Amino acid sequence: MPKTISNISVDCVIFGFDFKQLNVLLVERKLEEPKSKKVLIDDWTLVGYHILEDENIDNAAARILKSMSGLDHVFLEQFHTFGNANRLNNPKDKLWLKHQSEGFSDRVVTVAYLSLIDSTSVSLSLKERNVKWYPVNELPELGFDHRKIFEKGLDRLRDKVRSEPIGFELLPEKFTISQLQRLYEEILGTEFDRRNFRKKVLQMKYVIPLDEKQKGVKHKPAQLFIFSREVYEKTKTERFDFSV
Amino acid sequence: MPKTISNISVDCVIFGFDFKQLNVLLVERKLEEPKSKKVLIDDWTLVGYHILEDENIDNAAARILKSMSGLDHVFLEQFHTFGNANRLNNPKDKLWLKHQSEGFSDRVVTVAYLSLIDSTSVSLSLKERNVKWYPVNELPELGFDHRKIFEKGLDRLRDKVRSEPIGFELLPEKFTISQLQRLYEEILGTEFDRRNFRKKVLQMKYVIPLDEKQKGVKHKPAQLFIFSREVYEKTKTERFDFSV
Repeated sequence: MPKTISNISVDCVIFGFDFKQLNVLLVERKLEEPKSKKVLIDDWTLVGYHILEDENIDNAAARILKSMSGLDHVFLEQFHTFGNANRLNNPKDKLWLKHQSEGFSDRVVTVAYLSLIDSTSVSLSLKERNVKWYPVNELPELGFDHRKIFEKGLDRLRDKVRSEPIGFELLPEKFTISQLQRLYEEILGTEFDRRNFRKKVLQMKYVIPLDEKQKGVKHKPAQLFIFSREVYEKTKTERFDFSV
Repeated sequence: MPKTISNISVDCVIFGFDFKQLNVLLVERKLEEPKSKKVLIDDWTLVGYHILEDENIDNAAARILKSMSGLDHVFLEQFHTFGNANRLNNPKDKLWLKHQSEGFSDRVVTVAYLSLIDSTSVSLSLKERNVKWYPVNELPELGFDHRKIFEKGLDRLRDKVRSEPIGFELLPEKFTISQLQRLYEEILGTEFDRRNFRKKVLQMKYVIPLDEKQKGVKHKPAQLFIFSREVYEKTKTERFDFSV
């Protein structure tokens, strides 16, 4: 593996949706005393790593995402860079860095990416490290400044779903209107009236009804829909709304 | 001056408005052969520099902006980080880097900031370097990947003025509706109907008419207005527009 750059990293805020709640992917950060096996650190962080010497930052984020989920061609977009001089200065973070063999700097600027995954169709893996989906409102203690990065990522997701149809990235290809409603309620932390939401969605030319219903569900199977980016791109209109 | 970090910089896309056109602030990049005075490089770049060892990236951007314009407390917001491995690989860029005494890396990740300035009220200065406002549609050749950074900055400005009242940052405290219209036309590259624009602005509670008119103008003096961020924050409503 080529050499890493000691003071530049990427971190990914990877959101997934399991039809019930919005989750974020975390990786366990565990450090034990080699002999006594005493646990020195056991908390969680976002998924990230240092960039390689000849690697574009966008490629670094895609590489890390793929190594976790096996997926490429998923939604992945840079949203903010975190570069406070003291962002890794907490004693646990210093201890962790001291035990890494790669010789990372303790002054690291990290470029954060937002990623959206249909988590019902991926299985996660990471050699020698625990990875796990956590509901966004039940996060464990996060290392480094990752709580701050997560929160900014969630804000960005909320901003984006208000103005672009990106929520569909979190759903399987075929979905029901109830699933879409639940997703938007989870992201925005609010509740919508069922009938109004349905009416609104049915007006969107880019949400296309299929002649097909859910299978293998216990309740009455609901109609399935797909999202068409092509129709969206063709029908969207120029927005000018500086009064907001 | 504390040591700089060799592979991390900030660059500022600083926009100004002179009541006629939208401008961007550039600094000349000139290199002469020491003896023959033959000009090796003479082009322009955005305003930027490497960050210091103990400096937060936001502070680095504010420091650089202040060193150019004397201003602090102006609109300054991070918008994107550029980190392609080959972004400084053009022969002129390599030559420039070779002649800098600080020992900069040729693999630099740069964090780009958007800044908005009322350019009618500032005078620019920079020791030993030429700085100049250029109209955004008459830019000279730009060094490094700064054309790309500029274009992404202009896109961001356009996106932002469509959804937030940030255009006012580019105007003096007191302005006329014609000046505001000219500004929005310049930013969005379009023309608005005078009467409709006026009507729209007069509906905005946060654009407040003053009992005061322009002074020292040759034409009939127009009424002056101020923007109130306080009123804006109090009157803005939650937007939910995922249909765009």
